[in-house]
Amino acid sequence: MTSSETSQIAPPHRLLMGPGPINADPRVLRAMSAQLVGQFDPSMTAYMAETAELYRQVLRTTNEATVLVDGTARAGVEAVLVSLLAPGDRVLIPTFGRFGSLLVEIAERCGAEVTTIDVAWGQVVALDLIEAALREVHPKLVAIVHGDTSTTMLQPLDGLGELCHAHGALLYADVTASLGGNPFEMDAWGLDAATAGLQKCLGGPSGSAPTSLSPAAVEVIAARSSVEAGLADGERSTPPEARIRSNYFDLGMILDYWGPRRLNHHTEATSMLFAARECARLLVAEGIGAAVERHRLNGTAMADGVAALGLELFGDQEHRMHNIVAVRIPDGIDGDAVRAQVLERFGIEIGTSFGPLHGQVWRIGTMGYNARPDAVLTTLAALEQVLRRCGFEAPAGAGVDAAIAHYDDRDDLAGRAGRAGPARSQEAP
Amino acid sequence: MTSSETSQIAPPHRLLMGPGPINADPRVLRAMSAQLVGQFDPSMTAYMAETAELYRQVLRTTNEATVLVDGTARAGVEAVLVSLLAPGDRVLIPTFGRFGSLLVEIAERCGAEVTTIDVAWGQVVALDLIEAALREVHPKLVAIVHGDTSTTMLQPLDGLGELCHAHGALLYADVTASLGGNPFEMDAWGLDAATAGLQKCLGGPSGSAPTSLSPAAVEVIAARSSVEAGLADGERSTPPEARIRSNYFDLGMILDYWGPRRLNHHTEATSMLFAARECARLLVAEGIGAAVERHRLNGTAMADGVAALGLELFGDQEHRMHNIVAVRIPDGIDGDAVRAQVLERFGIEIGTSFGPLHGQVWRIGTMGYNARPDAVLTTLAALEQVLRRCGFEAPAGAGVDAAIAHYDDRDDLAGRAGRAGPARSQEAP
Repeated sequence: MTSSETSQIAPPHRLLMGPGPINADPRVLRAMSAQLVGQFDPSMTAYMAETAELYRQVLRTTNEATVLVDGTARAGVEAVLVSLLAPGDRVLIPTFGRFGSLLVEIAERCGAEVTTIDVAWGQVVALDLIEAALREVHPKLVAIVHGDTSTTMLQPLDGLGELCHAHGALLYADVTASLGGNPFEMDAWGLDAATAGLQKCLGGPSGSAPTSLSPAAVEVIAARSSVEAGLADGERSTPPEARIRSNYFDLGMILDYWGPRRLNHHTEATSMLFAARECARLLVAEGIGAAVERHRLNGTAMADGVAALGLELFGDQEHRMHNIVAVRIPDGIDGDAVRAQVLERFGIEIGTSFGPLHGQVWRIGTMGYNARPDAVLTTLAALEQVLRRCGFEAPAGAGVDAAIAHYDDRDDLAGRAGRAGPARSQEAP
Repeated sequence: MTSSETSQIAPPHRLLMGPGPINADPRVLRAMSAQLVGQFDPSMTAYMAETAELYRQVLRTTNEATVLVDGTARAGVEAVLVSLLAPGDRVLIPTFGRFGSLLVEIAERCGAEVTTIDVAWGQVVALDLIEAALREVHPKLVAIVHGDTSTTMLQPLDGLGELCHAHGALLYADVTASLGGNPFEMDAWGLDAATAGLQKCLGGPSGSAPTSLSPAAVEVIAARSSVEAGLADGERSTPPEARIRSNYFDLGMILDYWGPRRLNHHTEATSMLFAARECARLLVAEGIGAAVERHRLNGTAMADGVAALGLELFGDQEHRMHNIVAVRIPDGIDGDAVRAQVLERFGIEIGTSFGPLHGQVWRIGTMGYNARPDAVLTTLAALEQVLRRCGFEAPAGAGVDAAIAHYDDRDDLAGRAGRAGPARSQEAP
């Protein structure tokens, strides 16, 4: 490859209806094209403070310790686990899909003693199972995924914080896939830590991890944190072996950078900060409740549509996330061939799957900017055509008809969501 | 704050002439506004492959293992150190500024046994000192900063790889601040690992860390790496206690994601990938040698200009980076007040400093998109005005005159760099 062969970025048009990333809201992309300012410029620190406040609103928390971790959603997960868990600490991880296994893997690498509760993919974990394990294990931390895209399940968290606290444990949830599309109440549900990403219901690109910590979590971290050499000598110095094992993910240092002390740590990823701020600003302007309802409406329309095409839904539908549905690949149909035709002929991406579900289901998302009726109907229309061409006799028009019937049944809601979806939400000045 | 109070991103105009971040090239900002594609879309994997190839050209290497780490420059540093260094491994870190201390701090958190060679800020480390320490310490790795913005020094690396290899050590350099503005030859100088960032001479935003590994470094990492649970069961499984201590920074996993196996790891930060690709594309189109010469020319003009204003330069000028100069704050002048006036009156940012130099010097950068004569002359003109208003009698016009004389002395080069700078470089289709 020579330079003359390498052209400007010009990605093909895609409608991304998989488990994420999804198409970014164009307003988020525009926010990223803003020119940079210095990292301690008054305008920059004001943007950081505004972003923290917006994420408090999105996460439904009053936690002062609300920041971005500069990395993908997984960076937020690792920052929380490595900051809270010292080697030998006990952590309880109820697991119902791939992203629960990721929590296990990261906690193991932190040197923690991990106990899991495993349920079959397609189910969630009953609170009494968690309570029994709390009694037995006495963990320092319970770490759990809220919505796991690998199975589409949404774990109930209401009441879990109280349960953990009664047993002396902190509660952390990875809300990457669920936040903004499903009800979430950080403070009311008693969470001590939550981390997210932008590339699901928030309608942004991957690369920034909104992260919030309760005062109790901050206390644990402060006891383990230290100040970087040369920044404030002698202060809060911790012997090397007792330090948090990562510098980049030391949330104590990141809080010192975001907080009033403004101690230099990394150089904040300004363009991703702008993106994260715009994601939250649009969500707050729409109203968190309205956004959740929009995801519910469009997610249900998609589920009704694929069912009407004669496809079977996977997993406990009572506990499905609003923003994604898993669909069994019919016997005799080549799942990857269907996905390839949907992508190549129609420019629409639907998802494959991992682990025990690999080759068994497709995963179809309706999230963030793409939680819109036109995106749902276009996907159903294309899927019907491809299924027919691949040998599966989907009843003509049934998917689109079912989804439209669903929207029409709900005139009050369809009026709001159907005419314009997120793009019509009131634009703040 | 309510949603109606939170407005669109609209940062004030700033000319960023500090140690970085600097203004991003507008073409890089535009690249980030491209819509997203799926993470395994053929266009996405092609962009990843092109980006890797472009960074091979920028880093002057044939290393297949050339990727982006999704985080700021510091994320790249930590990824290399935690992937190469197992607890108890010996690492030798020659240190001549703050970012050397950062290598020490991160290596300590990896559990490594750290030996440092410390020289006074403003100097570089003589190769014979490093050789003597290699004989004594027998480290697995030598980790060193190439250009340290805290002191403006550029550490000579030519010959160091050979020296390290003769003593059985790998060589890693953090080239964040130097790459693109100063000569760098990854393969010819025998480096086994190099990491960078976008926000210095590459003219992009912070948030992506180009990283390259020699085959010898890959071999060390492969022996420690593992495959995430659920992705390829049983394969290359490593007992938890022997695994790389981080999942996010496990370069073995990141190589499996970027490489032909395309094993899912994080969700690539697509917009930052687009930015990183555009930074490298523009640099390759300009020509690496031409870009280095542009930084030399404009950096020298700035240094000549501030000296002509009656200010004293800090540090060994024979070993100064092209892209930054440190200037002693004159006796009786309030350094922060000067910086504040330059920012508030003229919208120009110059840098403060850390550690032993705090309050002693300003740091003025000429890098990336801002390595342009108009940026140099504007900064000198504003600085002269502010110095005079703050009570320092800078000779009227002397700074700008000296810089212009420098440009005019070099008709051949000034013709190229003076008329348009980077914006005039040939645009590939």
